[in-house]
Amino acid sequence: MTKTQEPVITSVADLPTSEAKWVTLQKISYIDQTGTPRTWEVASRKTRAASAGVDAVAMGNVLLHPARPPATLLVIQYRPPLDAYTVEWPAGLVDEGETAEQAAVREFREETGYACEVVGVSPVQAADPGLSSANMQLVMVEVRLGEEEALPEQRLEDGEHIQRVVVPLAELYDRLMEYSRRERTVVSAKLFHFAAGMHFAKTQAEKYGI
Amino acid sequence: MTKTQEPVITSVADLPTSEAKWVTLQKISYIDQTGTPRTWEVASRKTRAASAGVDAVAMGNVLLHPARPPATLLVIQYRPPLDAYTVEWPAGLVDEGETAEQAAVREFREETGYACEVVGVSPVQAADPGLSSANMQLVMVEVRLGEEEALPEQRLEDGEHIQRVVVPLAELYDRLMEYSRRERTVVSAKLFHFAAGMHFAKTQAEKYGI
Repeated sequence: MTKTQEPVITSVADLPTSEAKWVTLQKISYIDQTGTPRTWEVASRKTRAASAGVDAVAMGNVLLHPARPPATLLVIQYRPPLDAYTVEWPAGLVDEGETAEQAAVREFREETGYACEVVGVSPVQAADPGLSSANMQLVMVEVRLGEEEALPEQRLEDGEHIQRVVVPLAELYDRLMEYSRRERTVVSAKLFHFAAGMHFAKTQAEKYGI
Repeated sequence: MTKTQEPVITSVADLPTSEAKWVTLQKISYIDQTGTPRTWEVASRKTRAASAGVDAVAMGNVLLHPARPPATLLVIQYRPPLDAYTVEWPAGLVDEGETAEQAAVREFREETGYACEVVGVSPVQAADPGLSSANMQLVMVEVRLGEEEALPEQRLEDGEHIQRVVVPLAELYDRLMEYSRRERTVVSAKLFHFAAGMHFAKTQAEKYGI
C-alpha cells in the first residue's frame, strides 16, 4: 500500500434515498405474530446478485508454509463508515453470475494476491439483523506457500488501499486484542467473534467441559 | 412467546432520510491515502448513546446447571429486515448513561429473564464495516442455575416476541448448522463466527497445530 497521508473526512451529509447508489433505506410494514401491524426501518444493499442470493463473502484463511506455523492473512484498510482502520478477513461482494465459492477465490486473489483452495462454505448468515438485510457466507480457504518470503502482488481496484498482515493462528486472539488497543483501529465483529470462539474453546475447555 | 400467526410483510417503501427515526443514510466525503477525494455511502444508527460510545451489546452466555452440561441460551425472533427468524445471542442497544456491562445485564434480564454475572467485556467491534458505522461489544456472562426446570419470565418490551432456546455448548456449532437448514431461519454472523471458531479450534487443532 502506498500510504502517503492519513485519510480525512471532509464532510458528512444526509443522503436522499433517491440518490443512493449502493445502499438504500426502507420502511417495512409488517403484521407481527399477534396480528398487530408494525413498521421497521432497514438499510439494504442495492447490489445483491440474484444468482447467489447473498451480498458478500468473507474468507477465513489458513496459510500453510513448509517451515512456519499455520497462519492467517488479515487485511487492514481505512473504512469511511467508522473513520478508522478496520482489521478483517479478506471479503467482498458477490458479483452477478458468481457462486459464493467463485467470489471467494476471485476476491481473495484481488485483495491478497494468493490463489487459494476452498475447504468449506458456511450457510448464509445475517450480517447485522436488527439494522440491515445484508447477509454473507464465510468461505474457509487454504493457501499452500512455497519457501519464498515475499507477499505476492495484489490486484486492487481503483481506490482500494489494503494492507496485508500475516498472523500465526495460535496468536490470532491476542493480536486482535492488541489491534483493538491501537488508535483509530477497530476489529470487525465477525473476525473477532471467530477468534473469541477459538480462544474460548482453548481456554475454557476444562472449566466448561467442552 | 404467544405465536398466533406467521409474521408477514405488507409493504416495503423507500424511506426518505428526513423521516427515519432509527437509521440514517449519509454520504461521507473523504480524502484517501493518496490525496484523492472520494465518497462512501453509509447507514448509521441515530440512537448511539454518547456515554458508552457504542451502539449495542451482545451477550455470549454460559448457563451453569448443577446436573446438566454447560449450555448457552439463544434467542430466536422474527427480524423484518430479513423477513426471517434469526438465531442470535441476546443483544440490545446501549441506553444513554449506561456502560456496556450495565446494558448487558439489563438486556439479558429483559430478553431471557435471567440475572447474570459479567465475566468479560470485549473491545469495541465494527458490526459491518463496509456498510455501516454500527459497532458493538461482546459481553460474556454466566448464569448459575438452580435445580428447577422452568425458564424464568421475560420482561419484553411491547412488540418483542422472543423465543429462548438452551443449547449445550458442546453442540452449539451443530445446532446452528441445523437451524441454518430450516425454512425462513438465519443465524446471525457474529454468533455463527463464534461457534465456527470454537469448532475450528476443536476439530483442526491437530491438523494446524493450534
